[in-house]
Amino acid sequence: MASGNNLPAAIIHRLPHFTLSFPSAKHIFNPIESSDPLYPIHRPSARVVIVLGTSPLKTEHLDQYPSVECVVATSAGVDHIDLAECRRRNIRVTSAGSAFSEDGADYAVGLLMDVLLRVSAADRFVRAGLWPVKGHYPLGNKLGGKRVGIVGLGNIGTMVAKRLEPFGCTIAYTSRNKKSEVPYAFYPTVLELAANSDSLIVCCALSDKTHHIINRDVLTALGKKGIIVNIGRGALVDEKELVKLLVGGELGGAGVDVFENEPEVPKELFMLDNVVLSPHRAVLTPESFDKVTEVMNANVAAFFSNKPLLSEINLYD
Amino acid sequence: MASGNNLPAAIIHRLPHFTLSFPSAKHIFNPIESSDPLYPIHRPSARVVIVLGTSPLKTEHLDQYPSVECVVATSAGVDHIDLAECRRRNIRVTSAGSAFSEDGADYAVGLLMDVLLRVSAADRFVRAGLWPVKGHYPLGNKLGGKRVGIVGLGNIGTMVAKRLEPFGCTIAYTSRNKKSEVPYAFYPTVLELAANSDSLIVCCALSDKTHHIINRDVLTALGKKGIIVNIGRGALVDEKELVKLLVGGELGGAGVDVFENEPEVPKELFMLDNVVLSPHRAVLTPESFDKVTEVMNANVAAFFSNKPLLSEINLYD
Repeated sequence: MASGNNLPAAIIHRLPHFTLSFPSAKHIFNPIESSDPLYPIHRPSARVVIVLGTSPLKTEHLDQYPSVECVVATSAGVDHIDLAECRRRNIRVTSAGSAFSEDGADYAVGLLMDVLLRVSAADRFVRAGLWPVKGHYPLGNKLGGKRVGIVGLGNIGTMVAKRLEPFGCTIAYTSRNKKSEVPYAFYPTVLELAANSDSLIVCCALSDKTHHIINRDVLTALGKKGIIVNIGRGALVDEKELVKLLVGGELGGAGVDVFENEPEVPKELFMLDNVVLSPHRAVLTPESFDKVTEVMNANVAAFFSNKPLLSEINLYD
Repeated sequence: MASGNNLPAAIIHRLPHFTLSFPSAKHIFNPIESSDPLYPIHRPSARVVIVLGTSPLKTEHLDQYPSVECVVATSAGVDHIDLAECRRRNIRVTSAGSAFSEDGADYAVGLLMDVLLRVSAADRFVRAGLWPVKGHYPLGNKLGGKRVGIVGLGNIGTMVAKRLEPFGCTIAYTSRNKKSEVPYAFYPTVLELAANSDSLIVCCALSDKTHHIINRDVLTALGKKGIIVNIGRGALVDEKELVKLLVGGELGGAGVDVFENEPEVPKELFMLDNVVLSPHRAVLTPESFDKVTEVMNANVAAFFSNKPLLSEINLYD
């Protein structure tokens, strides 16, 4: 896979079975896989490490790349990368930036609609041959007029809001800071947001501060008819409590793309009709792959030519 | 069920197993069911017949109501009512008007998103326990940038367009007439619209003129990656051809809420992952039921007090 040209090399870091690849990156620089015969030669000197997907990059992994100066992530969230350790080692980190935002926002709206309107459940009903036998399927819920609370009004959250407006939803949000430029109601805590929302869409970054930000209290405040959609990271939600409340009928429904122990999904959810389950794929479309490849290429090229990085994470925030 | 008051009676006409009911209507007038002991007394003299859902009202049914002057439908489409015969008998007909439009538009967008983003299929994948076994689920398709063609730009079609705009879709339409007030491209035929669209959303009324308007040629023009969504009536689409093209991989996918022989659904579709099936329930939410009850009440009340009807069908169109 490595070429004989003089392009600087970037080492690819990935989980063994992470099968995504970015062919067009080869035209910009040398992406060297661990299967490549040149890998042992380049590994100690590589200045750039590309992290595919959510492959963990912790201290023990960083130790394998002693010369790394820049970690290029291909995901929007970088919770799989030990940012504190990168800061300590003076390593810069870039993310996918907004490459996935549109797809993420689309999928969040898609999951919310699917749970509310019961599309997947209705499809299951028809495929099981129940329509001629049971007659009318239970009513869905109208999207218009619903109060949708957005947890994290960043790129994705903002696009979710814009997409839901013409459906007649009322948008509110919580975020680290109130944003003066948006017309939506701001709640300083996720608990207050939940108490004033019919549905919550979780699309913030996972960090020490946001781990289990959706806990039992928040879900209880959302209430028996409340719906939660999570397209962020599994650990943003206390999954055990989510399952308990759903099974007990204490929560209206859930659309879940991310889980705490992927690819494991709590089996109790398989029985529920008010839940839509998705295998961490909100942003996986051919278009977003092209876009993230562009961002990755641009970051690697910028690094090697000493230009400003495009989507650098602020490690001192 | 009939009350002893002096309200004029309206006869309820429904299929035997049509289980919907409109309790609040009782406060406005006497809705008399066939199970009511007063039914045989009121049937010959009833001036209003309320048709529940899509219960057929043909010549033989109209004969049962010799005094009927006004037929109040509870659906947006009135293809189940013999309009020519009503015109001949000088019977006025009202529909649900726009009571269902928002829900219909929501569901159309929901089905399109579900097929494109593969939400139901991904849910099935997770519930079957395949995520840990097979790893990544196939990519979905991005909604943004798609050319969406709307067949019938009435109440529902217009609301579909407004909802899809913030996703970055390009909207075009075909309709009986070009509408000067809308910014979308107009195609005079559904065939031209299909040839210039990635997805078609069918939301026009069913009539002699629109029967099988979506035929083999239209579906072929839509193409191998094309997606069709039907929330209108089953007979708008040539279902046999739809099934053939889907099974043969000649069409990209389909989101179908209505079928030619409901509740029968072609079994071949049950095997397909690029199809979302729904039991004619696009508009069935508690909110739309409230709204249609209002419209129905208002029409009956207007009729009995000689006021203009709210959502009268033009039988001379």
